[in-house]
Amino acid sequence: MNEMNMPNWLKQRAFLTPDRTALVFEKRSWTFAQLYRNTLKAASALSASGIQKGDFCGVLASNKPETIFTIYALQQIGAIALMLNSRLTAEEIEWQLLDAGASHILFDPFHERKAAAISGIRSISIADFPDGKPFTPRETFVLDEPCSIMYTSGTTGRPKGVIQTYGNHYTSAEGSALNLGLHTDDTWLCAVPLFHISGYSIVMKSVIYGMEVCLFEKFDAKRINESLENGDVTIISVVTAMLSDMLKELTGNYSPRFRCMLLGGGPAPLPLLEQCRQKDIPVYQTYGMTETSSQIVTLAPEYALTKLGSAGKPLFPCAVKIDGEEEGEILVSGPNVTQGYLNRPEANEQSFQNGWFHTGDIGRLDSEGFLYVLDRRSDLIISGGENIYPAEIESVLTSFEAVLEAGVTGVPDEKWGSVPAAFYVADRPLSSEELAAFCSEKLARYKVPAYFIQVDKLPRNASNKLLRRELAAKWRDEYAH
Amino acid sequence: MNEMNMPNWLKQRAFLTPDRTALVFEKRSWTFAQLYRNTLKAASALSASGIQKGDFCGVLASNKPETIFTIYALQQIGAIALMLNSRLTAEEIEWQLLDAGASHILFDPFHERKAAAISGIRSISIADFPDGKPFTPRETFVLDEPCSIMYTSGTTGRPKGVIQTYGNHYTSAEGSALNLGLHTDDTWLCAVPLFHISGYSIVMKSVIYGMEVCLFEKFDAKRINESLENGDVTIISVVTAMLSDMLKELTGNYSPRFRCMLLGGGPAPLPLLEQCRQKDIPVYQTYGMTETSSQIVTLAPEYALTKLGSAGKPLFPCAVKIDGEEEGEILVSGPNVTQGYLNRPEANEQSFQNGWFHTGDIGRLDSEGFLYVLDRRSDLIISGGENIYPAEIESVLTSFEAVLEAGVTGVPDEKWGSVPAAFYVADRPLSSEELAAFCSEKLARYKVPAYFIQVDKLPRNASNKLLRRELAAKWRDEYAH
Repeated sequence: MNEMNMPNWLKQRAFLTPDRTALVFEKRSWTFAQLYRNTLKAASALSASGIQKGDFCGVLASNKPETIFTIYALQQIGAIALMLNSRLTAEEIEWQLLDAGASHILFDPFHERKAAAISGIRSISIADFPDGKPFTPRETFVLDEPCSIMYTSGTTGRPKGVIQTYGNHYTSAEGSALNLGLHTDDTWLCAVPLFHISGYSIVMKSVIYGMEVCLFEKFDAKRINESLENGDVTIISVVTAMLSDMLKELTGNYSPRFRCMLLGGGPAPLPLLEQCRQKDIPVYQTYGMTETSSQIVTLAPEYALTKLGSAGKPLFPCAVKIDGEEEGEILVSGPNVTQGYLNRPEANEQSFQNGWFHTGDIGRLDSEGFLYVLDRRSDLIISGGENIYPAEIESVLTSFEAVLEAGVTGVPDEKWGSVPAAFYVADRPLSSEELAAFCSEKLARYKVPAYFIQVDKLPRNASNKLLRRELAAKWRDEYAH
Repeated sequence: MNEMNMPNWLKQRAFLTPDRTALVFEKRSWTFAQLYRNTLKAASALSASGIQKGDFCGVLASNKPETIFTIYALQQIGAIALMLNSRLTAEEIEWQLLDAGASHILFDPFHERKAAAISGIRSISIADFPDGKPFTPRETFVLDEPCSIMYTSGTTGRPKGVIQTYGNHYTSAEGSALNLGLHTDDTWLCAVPLFHISGYSIVMKSVIYGMEVCLFEKFDAKRINESLENGDVTIISVVTAMLSDMLKELTGNYSPRFRCMLLGGGPAPLPLLEQCRQKDIPVYQTYGMTETSSQIVTLAPEYALTKLGSAGKPLFPCAVKIDGEEEGEILVSGPNVTQGYLNRPEANEQSFQNGWFHTGDIGRLDSEGFLYVLDRRSDLIISGGENIYPAEIESVLTSFEAVLEAGVTGVPDEKWGSVPAAFYVADRPLSSEELAAFCSEKLARYKVPAYFIQVDKLPRNASNKLLRRELAAKWRDEYAH
């Protein structure tokens, strides 16, 4: 091996700690040896279906064991997993598959219909892998080789595929362990989607750490609270909306074994943190994105209240700086930061300068070096942990025949933190219902604006650039209940 | 930063966790912020003395806080620490300094006299660093840049400088954490020498993990037992002779907080392991060497007795194989393995083939992949954790005027595990005393043979190669008490 090579992770893990529990789902569990056997069976079937090293394969699937077998199987083959947000429409998914030049789409039974609506690509069910020829896995992984792709939008509304290498995932797992510690009896509850970096990174940590993952198909505050109360689980990843629901349902206390509530998706409101403190819940607020392969900045629980609103300090192998005197764009660097977007030389040139990734988010550092995120990247709306880009919704709205121009902004929502609101100029009166119906065909449900507001004109600056923050102010002043 | 760069470790650590305890020595302790300040003061003084980035600096010092400040200070400057075994003679040390092209030798008061005996190189005392100009440390470390050099001998008797890069130390620390886990309250007791990789690697783990090191100047079984009994310490690195002494002294039990007895330097005898089991002491047997920047293979405590004599399985990012059908040379690979010996192109060509490092040790793997080390590299004698190479002693003996030829082998010793015994052919009767006196001038005390045996001829094979194993058999049959 040279320094960029590593032993095949799952093979090595099944060799080193075969009898440790790797995965628990409902009433079933798998050791690493069993997980490896299931994975090899999946790899054999996928390989027999024509998937080869270097292929890009869409994965459209729920949080189920088969999805995890599939993720690992693609790594055994050396194919790249294009993790598809299952909330997207068939049209949105097709666009990503085409953009990445994907060879196959893999789907589970729940997504069969959506997969069938996608044309021009071979589809493979991952419901039940048939027995096949024994599969010979790769001996080594190469650290700078792509492992997974996840699409994320930008201010232009055109989603870009973030390339996550094996090295990105490995160093992310290690950086997190250096920060959170690593206990032999750790169990990480995964109720966040496997197609997001939040969920996918838990699976990577599992194989790298030799750690049990407790997988939930859906978020269920009551059942999750039970797992945290009875001591089955030591760590969980959540977004604010999940934590809020869990606290509403919580009657008892979490087990002393439970040691980390890893909170992503924007700063948490004070009352929520106060509640956590009263219940002795160790909250680690984080800042991260698809491009950093999970958290890159984390706030230790002892600072949760004194550094309210801060995302904390970088992981050990990472660095953060601000492009500007006081406030400015947040720049990050570290071995977990993506090497770039798939087939987007221009975006890469803009985003990566002198080894620093330009996040597009605005922030400041206090005198002790704690990061405060002031504004997510250029009008990004974070709704229940999902990223929504106004430009994408605006381009759908302006494709409606009567709409002349449109501006979308995030407005506060008690349940989701934020939801999109659309302002538009049209050549005739339109109903919210017909616009919502039109958007629902083109956009994942969570992106469909919660409010449609017809106006005479949109606020623009001298160079005719849409001023979305003025829309937000307009909402606050005129429309908020 | 590019992917090979990392934030300056100590600067980053002092930024991330300034108030955590970094170091405890006797009654004093230092937080990471304090350690960093002491280090910058040392770096300022060393820099003012002319030490520059890329210089090789000998470090001849005891296990004292100042030695740790010096190790870190050299990293701040970007100079390479040539860690000198303080048991070596001035002559042996001078040879290493010359071989490495060292610019300076740094010494503490205890080694002042030995340092003064070394000519032709600038020497600097590290007893007390004067206040100087503020020092500006490096922002980043480069992973493939040399960090430290430690000399190790080989079958030829000519010591070679092992280059340990920042990346070697980093990945060694990480691989160890993935295996042993990492707790926020970990404290690692260091009573092994800082000039050995066993001690140096503890200091590197300290800064990478943000972990407290409890430093002992000398091994003291009673005081160390106290630390393990009262719960001050969670992990300790030992060799068999140390563990044996500690068990002899132990009257009570170690604290439940104590979680890892990391045992290096060859397989432990069964009675010792049985005693540990009776006392619930979690022993992790390991296999490693200077070239692997610390352990590379480790046996988990649950296998201590069932896999008796095994060194275990490789760390997660590493691999081990045997060059041969059943038994053969042990080959290792991993990011913690040295990239080579300093200025030794021929040795490097021999030792590194297809990405595997040829250890020279002989071993076998059982059906489950556990490594058994059958013979340390070509007649290596391990005495109380120190490596002794017979060829080096033989060449000193044959430089004595009356000695015609000599053969050295390791023979069992209750205290040290093994000690060197010398067989020689001479042209007149010689006394052990005069030979011992002669050797003591040329060799570190631990290398001076415990026994001198005059013989008529040495066992050699057809091609006249000395058969050292026959010497060992001869000792067993004719001389052992």
